[in-house]
Amino acid sequence: MDRRDVPQAVITRLPRYYRYLGELLEEGVERISSNELSERMKVTSSQIRQDLNHFGGFGQQGYGYHVPTLYAEIARLLGLDRVHNMIVIGAGNLGRALAGYANFEKRGFNITALFDKNPELVGKKNVRDIETYAMEDIEEYMDTHEVEIAVLAIPKTGAPEVAKRLCDKGIKAIWNFSHTDLDVPKGVVVENVHLSESLMKLSYAMEEA
Amino acid sequence: MDRRDVPQAVITRLPRYYRYLGELLEEGVERISSNELSERMKVTSSQIRQDLNHFGGFGQQGYGYHVPTLYAEIARLLGLDRVHNMIVIGAGNLGRALAGYANFEKRGFNITALFDKNPELVGKKNVRDIETYAMEDIEEYMDTHEVEIAVLAIPKTGAPEVAKRLCDKGIKAIWNFSHTDLDVPKGVVVENVHLSESLMKLSYAMEEA
Repeated sequence: MDRRDVPQAVITRLPRYYRYLGELLEEGVERISSNELSERMKVTSSQIRQDLNHFGGFGQQGYGYHVPTLYAEIARLLGLDRVHNMIVIGAGNLGRALAGYANFEKRGFNITALFDKNPELVGKKNVRDIETYAMEDIEEYMDTHEVEIAVLAIPKTGAPEVAKRLCDKGIKAIWNFSHTDLDVPKGVVVENVHLSESLMKLSYAMEEA
Repeated sequence: MDRRDVPQAVITRLPRYYRYLGELLEEGVERISSNELSERMKVTSSQIRQDLNHFGGFGQQGYGYHVPTLYAEIARLLGLDRVHNMIVIGAGNLGRALAGYANFEKRGFNITALFDKNPELVGKKNVRDIETYAMEDIEEYMDTHEVEIAVLAIPKTGAPEVAKRLCDKGIKAIWNFSHTDLDVPKGVVVENVHLSESLMKLSYAMEEA
């Protein structure tokens, strides 16, 4: 199965399929029909059939989907079949929360370092066994370690400059929690998590409800 | 301007307009043309004109938009013209990070309490002057305080039960950081922030890039 053949709309639904298939695996479920999956996920079974028809690993009519095969196929498409090294810029509460999620590591997102401007945090292992470095050391660290993803968990004022430094050093992707849009060279992936905009969406929906 | 007349696609772009208009206000800018705004926001000026034509407060051709009026109008639509009381369930790193954002309060999201099952945190002010209560005290707290929004920052295993308790007590909205889909009665707003799914989207885009 080639990723280019999968429509974008299906792709955006993949992480949710991946989550439900993972839960089924944990429960020891080997096969599931689209009807059963439909009930769990609260989407129509025809949507599920259409979506999952893009992937290998489903049995014939009446046999349902083979959970481990489908799970592995989706993992591969999402790039979860290999390890991504990740650094976290900002060792405040949010940076520490993100660095502390064992679940990311389980998915192959390996957090190797934290960076912070607070000298009291530098040189210490503030989260699990992950060392915190000074902000000035980003370049040296990237010269000597393989880093693909940087998590930006600093206030918006400092974010553009740090993003530029990361890009200059060849970062491949930035997971941006800083509340500003980043200007990056073509080819660098940015995924924004603008928390206050999510909260505004919630607030808007409350006005509707 | 009535919210029902505004298309959903425009609504989802509002928080971003709100952010840019807020930055203009901070810079003391009173008026801006759609061309200038377009350059800043990196969307076409015709998109901006179409979107903002849904709101009052824009001048005639050649005069540009009146920033404070447009800002206020969008704030009103997003429900930011009034205060929402909010509690945070889970006083771990993520809960504390969310409770600590002064920016939410600036937008009228007033965090009044944290709840946690860890007795070492209970009874203390772990973030600013916000007290942490025991999980058992959620009902009593909601009986005696006005609470509209609950932030769910606990592991997924406990989330469904806590969500049910919140809904039974009449919560209006749940901002859900627990990595599971919540089953809530009609009328209760849920806004999910599934961080690991966001990370998978980033990882997928890296494979594409």
